[in-house]
Amino acid sequence: MTQLIDIAVVGATGSVGETLVQILEELSFPVATLHLLASMESAGTGVMFAGKKLKVREVESFDFKQVKLVFFATSAAVSRSFAPKALKAGCTVIDLSGALEDAVPLVPEANAERVSQLSQPVLITSPAAGAVALAVALAPLKGLLDMERIQINACLSMSAQGKEAVGELARQTAELLNARPLEPRIFDRQVAFNLLAQVGAPDEQGHTGVERRLVSELRQLLGLPDLKISVTCIQVPVFFGDSFSVAVQSRRPVDLAAVSRALDSAASVELVEPGDYPTPVGDAVGQDVVYVGRVRRGIDEDEQLNLWLTTDNVRKGGALNAVQVAQLLIKHMA
Amino acid sequence: MTQLIDIAVVGATGSVGETLVQILEELSFPVATLHLLASMESAGTGVMFAGKKLKVREVESFDFKQVKLVFFATSAAVSRSFAPKALKAGCTVIDLSGALEDAVPLVPEANAERVSQLSQPVLITSPAAGAVALAVALAPLKGLLDMERIQINACLSMSAQGKEAVGELARQTAELLNARPLEPRIFDRQVAFNLLAQVGAPDEQGHTGVERRLVSELRQLLGLPDLKISVTCIQVPVFFGDSFSVAVQSRRPVDLAAVSRALDSAASVELVEPGDYPTPVGDAVGQDVVYVGRVRRGIDEDEQLNLWLTTDNVRKGGALNAVQVAQLLIKHMA
Repeated sequence: MTQLIDIAVVGATGSVGETLVQILEELSFPVATLHLLASMESAGTGVMFAGKKLKVREVESFDFKQVKLVFFATSAAVSRSFAPKALKAGCTVIDLSGALEDAVPLVPEANAERVSQLSQPVLITSPAAGAVALAVALAPLKGLLDMERIQINACLSMSAQGKEAVGELARQTAELLNARPLEPRIFDRQVAFNLLAQVGAPDEQGHTGVERRLVSELRQLLGLPDLKISVTCIQVPVFFGDSFSVAVQSRRPVDLAAVSRALDSAASVELVEPGDYPTPVGDAVGQDVVYVGRVRRGIDEDEQLNLWLTTDNVRKGGALNAVQVAQLLIKHMA
Repeated sequence: MTQLIDIAVVGATGSVGETLVQILEELSFPVATLHLLASMESAGTGVMFAGKKLKVREVESFDFKQVKLVFFATSAAVSRSFAPKALKAGCTVIDLSGALEDAVPLVPEANAERVSQLSQPVLITSPAAGAVALAVALAPLKGLLDMERIQINACLSMSAQGKEAVGELARQTAELLNARPLEPRIFDRQVAFNLLAQVGAPDEQGHTGVERRLVSELRQLLGLPDLKISVTCIQVPVFFGDSFSVAVQSRRPVDLAAVSRALDSAASVELVEPGDYPTPVGDAVGQDVVYVGRVRRGIDEDEQLNLWLTTDNVRKGGALNAVQVAQLLIKHMA
């Protein structure tokens, strides 16, 4: 019988944190005691877990020695403030913010073997949703494609920016449809029926943090240090579900039949046959897989593979990957 | 004084056709008599031009000998049926459908020199909006970039599919916000708050007609027969204005300052400085230029140029380019 573990989830009131708690229950994770933590402003609410209502407490005053495993589903600032405390108390930390420099990015379907190379205390990044999705879909193709370069267009949903962003899209949309004055709050402009060409402020080279994070994490997850990755992350007026248009440049012609077979049997991938295609709304949301469609070679080049991915960024791209990493760690330590 | 010309606009009741008529008036095009034509179902309505209400007549019974210049702002089927008649009657034809095989794609900002190489009768394609936008933005960079490959993600607005598609997005959105049952009509599924990974049916290689058209026309417009182009066209829940995420692979490092200077002074280009970015709603719609932003080198490679374009596909990408082509032809023949 698996030993039960005392766990803390920091950020338990955000959408990723809430989903993480639900998934711990759905997957019957071996939880002894579950501590739900949040910043002062969000503490006090009640969250259901295994039939009980648990009170969300302030992370500021929490003694991490009470737990063995901590999930951080929080902003970079909160992770930076409290992850060191958790590590010092001897906890294994799985962080979703991407802000912790020495953290090892892990996606079980892509680089599970890293779990045997982890130093103590264990500090893992559950990567950005896009990096998770791309790693899940592309890792199974490593043997088939001699990957030189990947070009990604990431269409991020509102949920990628949190609950308030989801609410803002609904409100702005209603304002426009009812001819009321538009009042942007979370965003600095109209997002309804619009595309925002960048998510977050660009640095001096013109790239945003989400773009740099996706490139760095994906390269590590695929274990291809010379792979060149290029990405543009845009904000689209979709509530839930991130989507990715991908072009992979191989050094040799793509064997499309072999690629399709590999995707069809890959873990956590649902391949949609040519002719049809997956969408965030119709397919991805609420599901545990990465949907892959429009698999084809480049119009001009047999050495190029084009594909379209969509996944529930909060679930598969976030909370579920984090729990699956924890499951992998438990198996490894057993 | 410029000689006045008898002109016909076929498809005068569609959004591109209507816009074309407006632009003929805005630019004081030297019109003698303007004939507005449409298929049987759309004929009979009145359209204002130069202070007069003109009746839209059936194209089926029109005698093209009455005119010298014909714009086809119609479906491929209508262009294929009637352009040959117009050519046979000695007309110059500017077609926006892309369906006519021997038509020469022309964008004055990109390949104006083609106008001196046209055989009679003159048959020109005003290219797909994406090809127009990309040609306008990239032609000025040909000397600065040794272009090997271009990768494009085209986010097409509803207006790219016509007036009914624009109405469908509004209706579906209202249905969802008001918790009424969704009734997809023009599209086979929900488009509101969703992304459709393909526009039109894919062929056996998995590419759609709009994708093949964009690649073929752009390569011709840039005059680079060995240039490899890769594209994914997706449908986004935006009413008006197409947007494009572009990665240009050069064979040598990109001189970003020189590229920015070239774009800043390029005809029909509005360059948005780093930090900010243009959007379809906030910038492009109703304007006569291609907005360019997020100009930067690839995260991993100095040999790559990334940029974001957005333009009014009905206007600059369609009707305005067609009229500008006609202006170029008149100048050339003068």
